[in-house]
Amino acid sequence: MDSCKNFWCGPKNTNVRISLPAICFIWQIAMIALFAIFVRYDPEADAHWTEYMHQNNITSNIENDFYYRYPSFQDVHVMIFMGFGLLFTFLKRYSFGGVGFNFLISAFGLQWALLMQGWFHSLDSTDWTIKIGMKSLINADFCVAGCLIAFGACLGKVSPIQLMVMTLCGVSLFAVEEYVILNLIHVDTGGSMVIHTFGGYYGLTISWILYRPNLHQSKRLRGSSYHSDVFAMIGTLFLWVHWPSFNSAIGNHGDGQHRAVINTYLSLAASVLTTFAVSSLSAKRGKLSMVHIQNATLAGGVAMGTAAEIMVSPYSALVVGVCSGIISTFGFVVLTPFMEKHMKIQDTCGIHNLHAMPGVLGGAVGAVTAAFASTSVYGQEGLMHAIMHGFVDRTMGMQAAHQAAGLCIAIISGIGGGAVVGCILRLPCWGDPEDENCFDDEVYWEVTLPEDEESVPPVNQYNDQKADKQTDV
Amino acid sequence: MDSCKNFWCGPKNTNVRISLPAICFIWQIAMIALFAIFVRYDPEADAHWTEYMHQNNITSNIENDFYYRYPSFQDVHVMIFMGFGLLFTFLKRYSFGGVGFNFLISAFGLQWALLMQGWFHSLDSTDWTIKIGMKSLINADFCVAGCLIAFGACLGKVSPIQLMVMTLCGVSLFAVEEYVILNLIHVDTGGSMVIHTFGGYYGLTISWILYRPNLHQSKRLRGSSYHSDVFAMIGTLFLWVHWPSFNSAIGNHGDGQHRAVINTYLSLAASVLTTFAVSSLSAKRGKLSMVHIQNATLAGGVAMGTAAEIMVSPYSALVVGVCSGIISTFGFVVLTPFMEKHMKIQDTCGIHNLHAMPGVLGGAVGAVTAAFASTSVYGQEGLMHAIMHGFVDRTMGMQAAHQAAGLCIAIISGIGGGAVVGCILRLPCWGDPEDENCFDDEVYWEVTLPEDEESVPPVNQYNDQKADKQTDV
Amino acid sequence: MDSCKNFWCGPKNTNVRISLPAICFIWQIAMIALFAIFVRYDPEADAHWTEYMHQNNITSNIENDFYYRYPSFQDVHVMIFMGFGLLFTFLKRYSFGGVGFNFLISAFGLQWALLMQGWFHSLDSTDWTIKIGMKSLINADFCVAGCLIAFGACLGKVSPIQLMVMTLCGVSLFAVEEYVILNLIHVDTGGSMVIHTFGGYYGLTISWILYRPNLHQSKRLRGSSYHSDVFAMIGTLFLWVHWPSFNSAIGNHGDGQHRAVINTYLSLAASVLTTFAVSSLSAKRGKLSMVHIQNATLAGGVAMGTAAEIMVSPYSALVVGVCSGIISTFGFVVLTPFMEKHMKIQDTCGIHNLHAMPGVLGGAVGAVTAAFASTSVYGQEGLMHAIMHGFVDRTMGMQAAHQAAGLCIAIISGIGGGAVVGCILRLPCWGDPEDENCFDDEVYWEVTLPEDEESVPPVNQYNDQKADKQTDV
Repeated sequence: MDSCKNFWCGPKNTNVRISLPAICFIWQIAMIALFAIFVRYDPEADAHWTEYMHQNNITSNIENDFYYRYPSFQDVHVMIFMGFGLLFTFLKRYSFGGVGFNFLISAFGLQWALLMQGWFHSLDSTDWTIKIGMKSLINADFCVAGCLIAFGACLGKVSPIQLMVMTLCGVSLFAVEEYVILNLIHVDTGGSMVIHTFGGYYGLTISWILYRPNLHQSKRLRGSSYHSDVFAMIGTLFLWVHWPSFNSAIGNHGDGQHRAVINTYLSLAASVLTTFAVSSLSAKRGKLSMVHIQNATLAGGVAMGTAAEIMVSPYSALVVGVCSGIISTFGFVVLTPFMEKHMKIQDTCGIHNLHAMPGVLGGAVGAVTAAFASTSVYGQEGLMHAIMHGFVDRTMGMQAAHQAAGLCIAIISGIGGGAVVGCILRLPCWGDPEDENCFDDEVYWEVTLPEDEESVPPVNQYNDQKADKQTDV
Repeated sequence: MDSCKNFWCGPKNTNVRISLPAICFIWQIAMIALFAIFVRYDPEADAHWTEYMHQNNITSNIENDFYYRYPSFQDVHVMIFMGFGLLFTFLKRYSFGGVGFNFLISAFGLQWALLMQGWFHSLDSTDWTIKIGMKSLINADFCVAGCLIAFGACLGKVSPIQLMVMTLCGVSLFAVEEYVILNLIHVDTGGSMVIHTFGGYYGLTISWILYRPNLHQSKRLRGSSYHSDVFAMIGTLFLWVHWPSFNSAIGNHGDGQHRAVINTYLSLAASVLTTFAVSSLSAKRGKLSMVHIQNATLAGGVAMGTAAEIMVSPYSALVVGVCSGIISTFGFVVLTPFMEKHMKIQDTCGIHNLHAMPGVLGGAVGAVTAAFASTSVYGQEGLMHAIMHGFVDRTMGMQAAHQAAGLCIAIISGIGGGAVVGCILRLPCWGDPEDENCFDDEVYWEVTLPEDEESVPPVNQYNDQKADKQTDV
Repeated sequence: MDSCKNFWCGPKNTNVRISLPAICFIWQIAMIALFAIFVRYDPEADAHWTEYMHQNNITSNIENDFYYRYPSFQDVHVMIFMGFGLLFTFLKRYSFGGVGFNFLISAFGLQWALLMQGWFHSLDSTDWTIKIGMKSLINADFCVAGCLIAFGACLGKVSPIQLMVMTLCGVSLFAVEEYVILNLIHVDTGGSMVIHTFGGYYGLTISWILYRPNLHQSKRLRGSSYHSDVFAMIGTLFLWVHWPSFNSAIGNHGDGQHRAVINTYLSLAASVLTTFAVSSLSAKRGKLSMVHIQNATLAGGVAMGTAAEIMVSPYSALVVGVCSGIISTFGFVVLTPFMEKHMKIQDTCGIHNLHAMPGVLGGAVGAVTAAFASTSVYGQEGLMHAIMHGFVDRTMGMQAAHQAAGLCIAIISGIGGGAVVGCILRLPCWGDPEDENCFDDEVYWEVTLPEDEESVPPVNQYNDQKADKQTDV
């Protein structure tokens, strides 16, 4: 009742009927214009491919990079839109928002990512154009992943417009930070730090600045229902099953991709066991928590990101998985409540546990393992590959220092960028919901009338109990 | 109560206990017989492959067409059975029928499609056999897609037997229409017109002829529930994520498939933004509608079908996506209600907006873009490829004329075929439901009675509450 | 009430807070130790790959086995974690346990499988190490599948600890039995007998020994809810769509994998039609049962397992599908109730119908078809391939004898192993639930209190009916 009163008469205006369409159209038109100016097909996707083959002594169409990467690309694509999207449906009354806004900002973000990453990584200086191919699409999806992680921290508390702004800025920041870490410092060939640590701290900072002291007013909606937990579990499994593709999609042809898959596969398997273990340990009567299973089981993939292609040997992959699973579950049990209570950080999905911390761990793993690379392990040519790839051309000390530098940059750009963007998002013009309407789809979605569903339970319960009593009699 | 009376005593007999099994067995046996006579393995799937390699100077197994197409095939397969199937679960009480009947007619349709397409496209005149390989399986799935689109218009209003008949005729028509458009007129290398426009008008015409004046009697069931909308959204995401495979699966090896993926990826991303924009614009207080998000976001893939492999350049792909998203959402907002009210067309899933219209748009795009093909864009060999492929060997005028002709054939065969099939399906012998039992799984499925289903939790709950009290004490 | 009493005060202690974490940690640490000692990268996944290429005159990275098998591997991985996992969510109150425990034992099982299969199949006698590559990962997933089948028979009646023990023993048995059948007797190149028959009888025997005379006390929970059936259907579709990858994943490069996909695709399609037919025939008023559709439609894939790569010709694949669909649905209608009533076998998921019987059929198909292999069918080299592969180097009689021997070994090791493991699991120390708490997630999971959801429909219906009456007035 008063929920209703506040909803209609509250000071905050959640009507996005003008602003959302305006932003969508303006930005989409801008994308078209910029694509027209800058974006062309990669030689391997261009109709001149056949000539390109002759010039480069490529003997067969199967050598087209498309066939090396397309299966992994599809898996990554599934992770971004289905994995993240469904994982965000776990709230009992925010499933539409979780999967729907994930869909919106991903579709926008990948267009902007193609441009930003193109300008920073692959601008063709001869004609100032960006040539996009399979690898660009995969990188665009990666870039979007960083923003979706940030979305996870703000889930249910922000408006679609705020999410669009968050994505625009996040993608821009990502491209810069990625450029510095990969192209200048040459560390983190995987995504642990660049994607997960950055995305994690970017989202946490925004969520910290948008702190809502009265969020408890929407406490009734801040939980899962039996079936929404199953939906979220589907998202988890999509992410878990395809994570080997995530870590190998842009790897070196041949043994590189092959090894990245094996390492990630093992690391993920190990983190599942430790997640179940810690989850059971931490609960009264050892009951398992779906929140832990839905999230911490993925930490192994995050932590393996940087070192996926390195010759870490299978058992080390298991060790990485074990540690990340423990850290992550521990975070859900201890850190998230602590951060909300004492640090004013409301982390809806616990991204600090799933992305930020395992990402840092991943960076450390990369530093250590890379330092041990040697000809005996890699062989002459293998080592050259690795060096070209930029993660073993240094002494252990140097490597560690570089890795540390990269990690700092990821964290700083995440926190710094988050602070700026957070302040922008505090402006009252973005149509975000009242504290008591957070985690509620009815704010931005046409939801089937309450009579058909929710809000009935009290009554209904009452009826059922009556019925029971009657039958008991 | 009266619903129950009509169900058991109504004039229409929905008991399919004899008819459904009879049709399934007869048709399956017929399939076996025809397969025994006509169907053999393609040389690339035959045990003589090794000799075939030597004869054709193929140096490696990886050159087998299987490795060019299998990943895309699996994606298409997922789209047909999971994408369409789950998209059809959006009705609150027709989820079993949506996913189940989709399963039934797809499994039957693809067998018949292998035969029909084989006879028309790849009959080996030496021994009158059909050699099936990866490409045949993909084409069979495409053919089934046309019938599933038609299913969408009739969802909830027809019996499984009517669906089987609809599929048998639909597949047959499809093969003929496809043969004319691709092999005689040489247009529409993608599927926009052949699959989507044909399927759309085929289904709409059937739905028009099967018009139910008293459908409002089942109004209570003609809507979604919160969770059924999430199920449907999973189907949408399967379709959206894998659509690049749909448009590239039977493309040219090398740059052809590569380019088709990029174009579709971009077009789909653009249509998501415009769908959100128009959906918000069209609603009171700018609230988004799941119906729009579930459907119109896919229009970009449909509209890109014909031109997917053409050198349209990335920004044009975005433009196509923008237009199709707008058209499709607009259709849901304005056309579908109008058609139901004034044209007696009850289009359950709004296939006119998602398939028919964007399909026409796609045909137009193909005509325009193809006309601009030139050596400068394609290069000598690329152009030859394209010409062999049959979409740039004409002047703009000729091409436009041919494309228009193809479009007319798709529409005419859809409407004409739909009219005939619709009249057949009006016969009272097919076991279709009463108006007031439409959209209700209980007609054809054993459904757990809600009381059984739901009276359980309260009991537990009752105990739990007691238990809690006890522990609290 | 008494449910509650027994739950808290019953003799059985379901508190796994110590035991589950202990087992997870101990076994995971053991895995790490054993991996450190035995497991290395396969040459194709090792950084020395480039040198390996030169030594073996491999001209391109695309020849790496990774690119032949990775797409199929991902599909199989999806089947294990999403297909089986979601199929097990069909119980109205055991969805968490179904998908969650499936996740736990698969993640543990595949690590142990890599070791066991490595020791038996690919131990490198020079340095006593196991070299793992793509094929090892796929085989590990297959091995896990056998245990998941067994899980299906015990679903809802065992504790996670019992499942871990069951998996440890199951994987060990599987590796031995597989070694005998494939490497000593040389039959069953597919998985029909090794995976499905073994897994089926292993699970049935365990379930028989763990017979619960008072299981009817949890009858209220032993059924599906409307939405849990849809979740299970998603699992079914994952299995159905990707089964061609399951049967072709470790097939011969080139025509072998290509043919396996075609045969499985056709067999599966045929079993869908016969399943619908028999399901409708067996029910009052021909109403279809979701249990049949969710399970029997997959029998075609199981039965095609052994003969997938053989030149059975397409129509025979259809015949196999038809028979398996009939047998399997018939089993659900007649055998499962009979076995529970008269043989004290409580088979929760009906694995006897989906895996055990079709697996036997598959073995028979393999025997018959293999016996007809000849140069005329396979060609010289094709036949050599086949012979090397070990399924056509014998007369029909010999082959049949060997196949029968293989079948016996699969069944005997399943039943024998199941008997031993079952007795171990009868010990009172494993934390399994009381008869009346079976099929209830609240035993091992923190479940949101039901008042937050469920039990809507009754009232809802009630409202709707009221509404209707009102509108009727």
